Amino acid sequence: MNCNTPTDVTFSFTGFAQRGGRTDHHADGWGIAFFEDRGLRHFVDHQPACESPVAELIRRYPIKSRNVIAHIRKATQGAVNLQNCHPFVRELWGRYWVFAHNGDLKDFRPRLHGSFRPVGSTDSEHAFCWLMQELAKSHAGVPNVEELTLTLRELVPRFARQGSFNFMLSNGQALWSHASTHLWYIERRHPFLTAELSDEDLSIDFAQHTTPNDRVAVVVTAPLTVNETWTPFAPGELALFVDGQRRA
Amino acid sequence: MNCNTPTDVTFSFTGFAQRGGRTDHHADGWGIAFFEDRGLRHFVDHQPACESPVAELIRRYPIKSRNVIAHIRKATQGAVNLQNCHPFVRELWGRYWVFAHNGDLKDFRPRLHGSFRPVGSTDSEHAFCWLMQELAKSHAGVPNVEELTLTLRELVPRFARQGSFNFMLSNGQALWSHASTHLWYIERRHPFLTAELSDEDLSIDFAQHTTPNDRVAVVVTAPLTVNETWTPFAPGELALFVDGQRRA
Repeated sequence: MNCNTPTDVTFSFTGFAQRGGRTDHHADGWGIAFFEDRGLRHFVDHQPACESPVAELIRRYPIKSRNVIAHIRKATQGAVNLQNCHPFVRELWGRYWVFAHNGDLKDFRPRLHGSFRPVGSTDSEHAFCWLMQELAKSHAGVPNVEELTLTLRELVPRFARQGSFNFMLSNGQALWSHASTHLWYIERRHPFLTAELSDEDLSIDFAQHTTPNDRVAVVVTAPLTVNETWTPFAPGELALFVDGQRRA
Repeated sequence: MNCNTPTDVTFSFTGFAQRGGRTDHHADGWGIAFFEDRGLRHFVDHQPACESPVAELIRRYPIKSRNVIAHIRKATQGAVNLQNCHPFVRELWGRYWVFAHNGDLKDFRPRLHGSFRPVGSTDSEHAFCWLMQELAKSHAGVPNVEELTLTLRELVPRFARQGSFNFMLSNGQALWSHASTHLWYIERRHPFLTAELSDEDLSIDFAQHTTPNDRVAVVVTAPLTVNETWTPFAPGELALFVDGQRRA
């Protein structure tokens, strides 16, 4: 989720968490990261999201954030343990970077010669470390989000050839999303309507929780609501979201 | 806390959290990090620990860990916000490193030329980044805990001259604690006794929650219990704890 006003994710997370073992088979752990300014709240758990006490906290405690990345895991590479739960976090240029991956990069272990090393054993964290290494090499100082988008567009095709590589990346200023197989997004803005979750019998009238200036973009691997129009990504598309709007 | 068996901190944290605004004036945020193998659960909040919903979760949900670092903040440098909450986390050599600081390093901003930069504005995170930078330069590969202890003993005096620098550092394998002004520790082992918290009317019979082989070391800035014998650190002392025992 990327927004122009700090927004809570309790509604979306309620549906999303059901996919962690109840309505879907992604039961091998989960995680979520909320930026608050430059700071970060990072929660990971190797219990299924539908049973986790930490997930229960997130559902009930409305943490407000402008950039949130959440993930529920179906283990393809790497054991079910805490260090293999997404999203992963690293610091670069005095900002935290958060990364979550959906997909499988078969036999792709690019060489890591920089200062980022995986702690766990997933293909995903390895790919993230490589991405951070290459970003660090590409810019002497902190680039702006448009420059970062150009760099990512050069780097990402080197992965995407190796397997499925749908990912979310944020540094708290923007959200970058890449689809190699499937990803959908929605931009919610005034006039806000009522949305109905597809994974649980729950609806919300966003008009009651928003102001006319609010803009919220949500990017997902499968639409979370049944009565809204979600836009599919084209294969290979890398999108930039800033302040709740798609910018590139 | 450093132990030989995964142990929960609900008892100690109950007393500790009271110091975050109730029995003490450390009300400018708090944080706690639990290692589980190489993985890490990291919770930070800029609300006082005695009121935080996340602290309430920690008090009730027994997360078991062999290495835990917790901190409640009294802001001396840097605003009250999430990015300034301890403990701080960085990755080095494929391990997470967790750091919390009690004290004040006046006008001490050593040059950061490596790959670690502070995200917030505290003297503490700056010191941590410098420590990580110097550790990274001192060893080509991953050193063992004894080698790391020697390196830390060389590095730490360069800070300690600049102000008060009580800190805790862990990479999930060991806990390093340094006292420049005050720090106390206890090693609990068989036979376990009943302990009474000094900050809340609560006691626990550890014998009921432990096995004879368990060993637990707890290091604090002020003793947490009234009926146990805590050992004070000497000024300038850097201690290493492994498997619930002081090793150096």
